[in-house]
Amino acid sequence: MNIWEELQESVGFSFKELSLLQTAFTHSSYVNEHRKEHLKDNERLEFLGDAVLELTVSDYLFKKYPDMAEGQMTKMRAAIVCEPSLVEFADSVHFSKYVRLGKGEEKAGGRTRPALLADVFEAFIGALYLDNGLQKVIQFLERIVFPKIDAGAFLETVDYKTQLQEIVQRDRDVLIEYDILGETGPAHNKAFEAQVIVNGQVLGRGTGRTKKQAEQNAAEFAVSKLMHQ
Amino acid sequence: MNIWEELQESVGFSFKELSLLQTAFTHSSYVNEHRKEHLKDNERLEFLGDAVLELTVSDYLFKKYPDMAEGQMTKMRAAIVCEPSLVEFADSVHFSKYVRLGKGEEKAGGRTRPALLADVFEAFIGALYLDNGLQKVIQFLERIVFPKIDAGAFLETVDYKTQLQEIVQRDRDVLIEYDILGETGPAHNKAFEAQVIVNGQVLGRGTGRTKKQAEQNAAEFAVSKLMHQ
Repeated sequence: MNIWEELQESVGFSFKELSLLQTAFTHSSYVNEHRKEHLKDNERLEFLGDAVLELTVSDYLFKKYPDMAEGQMTKMRAAIVCEPSLVEFADSVHFSKYVRLGKGEEKAGGRTRPALLADVFEAFIGALYLDNGLQKVIQFLERIVFPKIDAGAFLETVDYKTQLQEIVQRDRDVLIEYDILGETGPAHNKAFEAQVIVNGQVLGRGTGRTKKQAEQNAAEFAVSKLMHQ
Repeated sequence: MNIWEELQESVGFSFKELSLLQTAFTHSSYVNEHRKEHLKDNERLEFLGDAVLELTVSDYLFKKYPDMAEGQMTKMRAAIVCEPSLVEFADSVHFSKYVRLGKGEEKAGGRTRPALLADVFEAFIGALYLDNGLQKVIQFLERIVFPKIDAGAFLETVDYKTQLQEIVQRDRDVLIEYDILGETGPAHNKAFEAQVIVNGQVLGRGTGRTKKQAEQNAAEFAVSKLMHQ
């Protein structure tokens, strides 16, 4: 079994056009050292794959979190389609092993360079899209990316009230209410106290300089309680 | 014919779920003034539509310009999916007429505000994608956006050597060569002269402080010549 057969087995797809898969794993430094072979590097596929990833992740978030505000979804998407996350996804399928690098880049440690691995991951998504269509990309992400979203790995990017909502609404039809319990202090230095009630049960209290901040702190308390119970 | 029927006729698609189309044209200021109707604003659809547009445009550029470098495609994509361009697309299908706005926003001239129209265009793309799938979005863009790309409306964002390549390679198998004709001046103040030859014919000459700049200037001359012939 050559490395391309091994790679296809590892990702769970066979490519109709093997050269697309090979291009996705070809760094420009390799192309520069093999001019006579007229190879292509992975940069154009990365351009395409980046857009494929943006859409597939956006679509997933849109449907998974039907009540989440646009701003919160944007934050989550940015945390999923960012270099450190892409490197993690690439590592989970051992992509670094298959990259074709020039000798200089290899010596300089390019094979484990985060930016390079993130690019290879995006280029692979671009190649998979061209060869097999959007549906196959989604199947791949259902193994490599979406389970991490489901496990809440990117929820820390959104605010506490949204986190609480997403955690308790896994079981549907839950009512979350916030009450302002009181305010203290003079006008220029007020403090508010809030509580959050989930299905009639007080889950957290918090204080803050504004009502909003008091509610966020109450939600933070509730999230932390639910996470550790 | 009510305005939603008119709008569907104007865009050339009928929606299975009319509420998606209506949501795409609903600004948050309208929702705030009609709290009892429990409407949704278009912000989540805009989030999704933005990603749909990025992918469909990327895919189109990738296939239309098979030799264009990633950096140039990225520049072109940014020029297509940016506020002024989106407003132009929205205007070409008279979207501003159908937007649902709050009274305050209406008075403040929101209906013709560029950011608002660009958002509505993206939200519409998101709604079309959810209701009819990616293929219908592409059909819509084939009428509204892609012809502008074909006409070269966004080529000015890429460098002149790339422009020249794209212009002459509309008829395939064209050979473009650059020659450095000479250099003058002392080491700290050199000037180069370059010429560009297309299928054996000199189309332009240019000078510059570097070889690259001289070639760019030669290409600029050739592009301008071809555009005005």
